[in-house]
Amino acid sequence: MSLDPDLEAPRGVPAVRHRVVKVRDHAASECQDHLAVEEPLEIRLGGVNLSVTMRTPGDDEELVAGFLFSEGIIGGADDLDVIARYRGPDGDPDDSNVMNVLLKGDARVARERLRRNFVASSSCGLCGKATIDAIRAALPPVKSDLVITIDRVTAAMHDAQSTFEKTGGLHAAGLFDADGRLVVLREDIGRHNAVDKVIGHMVLARGVPLDRHVLMVSGRVSFEIVQKALTARIPVIAAVSAPSSMAVQMALAADMTLIGFVRNGGFNLYAGAHRVVPGVAELV
Amino acid sequence: MSLDPDLEAPRGVPAVRHRVVKVRDHAASECQDHLAVEEPLEIRLGGVNLSVTMRTPGDDEELVAGFLFSEGIIGGADDLDVIARYRGPDGDPDDSNVMNVLLKGDARVARERLRRNFVASSSCGLCGKATIDAIRAALPPVKSDLVITIDRVTAAMHDAQSTFEKTGGLHAAGLFDADGRLVVLREDIGRHNAVDKVIGHMVLARGVPLDRHVLMVSGRVSFEIVQKALTARIPVIAAVSAPSSMAVQMALAADMTLIGFVRNGGFNLYAGAHRVVPGVAELV
Repeated sequence: MSLDPDLEAPRGVPAVRHRVVKVRDHAASECQDHLAVEEPLEIRLGGVNLSVTMRTPGDDEELVAGFLFSEGIIGGADDLDVIARYRGPDGDPDDSNVMNVLLKGDARVARERLRRNFVASSSCGLCGKATIDAIRAALPPVKSDLVITIDRVTAAMHDAQSTFEKTGGLHAAGLFDADGRLVVLREDIGRHNAVDKVIGHMVLARGVPLDRHVLMVSGRVSFEIVQKALTARIPVIAAVSAPSSMAVQMALAADMTLIGFVRNGGFNLYAGAHRVVPGVAELV
Repeated sequence: MSLDPDLEAPRGVPAVRHRVVKVRDHAASECQDHLAVEEPLEIRLGGVNLSVTMRTPGDDEELVAGFLFSEGIIGGADDLDVIARYRGPDGDPDDSNVMNVLLKGDARVARERLRRNFVASSSCGLCGKATIDAIRAALPPVKSDLVITIDRVTAAMHDAQSTFEKTGGLHAAGLFDADGRLVVLREDIGRHNAVDKVIGHMVLARGVPLDRHVLMVSGRVSFEIVQKALTARIPVIAAVSAPSSMAVQMALAADMTLIGFVRNGGFNLYAGAHRVVPGVAELV
């Protein structure tokens, strides 16, 4: 039983460097952090959009082949004619997050082979270069004068965390108001569902927009979590783990505050540091 | 900063009991384990399928409202007419995993409000009572005489884990052959993507079906992971964490071996225990 590096050695996962504000014991310092890269991939079948997935770039041909196989669209490599990266208007395929698939058989027949809850997405522009700009146009930046203290961030997470830990590995999301009170907490086997349930609770209670609230999540922060928070106008997201590259891009573009690695009384600030102040006084 | 139990006390997440075989120090014993419940939820808009998501049951109205809000279909509660659980042919709404939404405005207009990569699913029967049976019909059980020893399971995970730990929280999936050699390992910010990349690698290498392979995953095992493995005819899945209720149901129905909590030389067997034998000899 051994890892054979000659077979398929695990390679490094793409990461980007990002300057963060590190807060420890009420002292802030700047440092470099590495963010796991998250980017959309659009799969087209015969030029027609089939699916958009958020993924870490790399091995995209394998991702496409595995996805098509898992969904029953192909039965093996023999059904594939070509998997090619889409060459955009600027002719540079390396920048493209679009993969086009041609099958040997009839693509229409292949589409009908889909046997279950196949996830099909409308074309969205999410995979283009102008992603963040497009979303920024659709969703203007948050406007919130909410300011929170370092103590409030760590205390809120401490409270949330003690509940998170009871979930046995499920994802949890909690919403805190400007006074630091937990308003609603939901758990789910799906990370996005927990956030949807929290925001849905406030929608049904006619509590949106949430422009003076803080969203806490138990795990990592993906692009989609930031987008959900932005739609609800939540100015501050705090998480136990790290954000993805695209989550940080999105938070910066929307003037949101993004806090990660809230642990042991400290945390990292990835975006919107202006909303977090060192004072222990009740500023809110 | 405090949890106010009077506001919205966190409740227990639904769990089901399942008899597992616990393996510790080469000794097996039977015990009860709790599985987090995972079930599909289909959201219909005006009776027409809009989306299927795997979720933990509970607060389904909130999930629906939050999803519609996040996707830009509703701007608030005022746009909602009713969110009602679909009453199936047998008239029992409690068993239904289908929620139907009626909007106050024109649903067609609402659909056009979708502003980005909206995930729409074709109707699939996944939410019906006959889910597992329907999938079993479409995907027959695995047929594999693969037998692995306890030592091989723990050694393979030890090897995989040492690589998983370098990923800094990303999801990883590794495929081992019958001799316990790692064939391919992939990491991704998305759990399903890592599995798709591994299987896609084998599809492109004309290596499917994988009926004498073991799939290792770094986190939890969801229904979708089991389904992907079953499509590739992988007889054994081993994971660092727990499987969901529906993952276990699916593995049992497909005669797959499902191993969880592979840690410190031990593990739990949730399904297909007949493929794991105590011997330390090379049985494969």
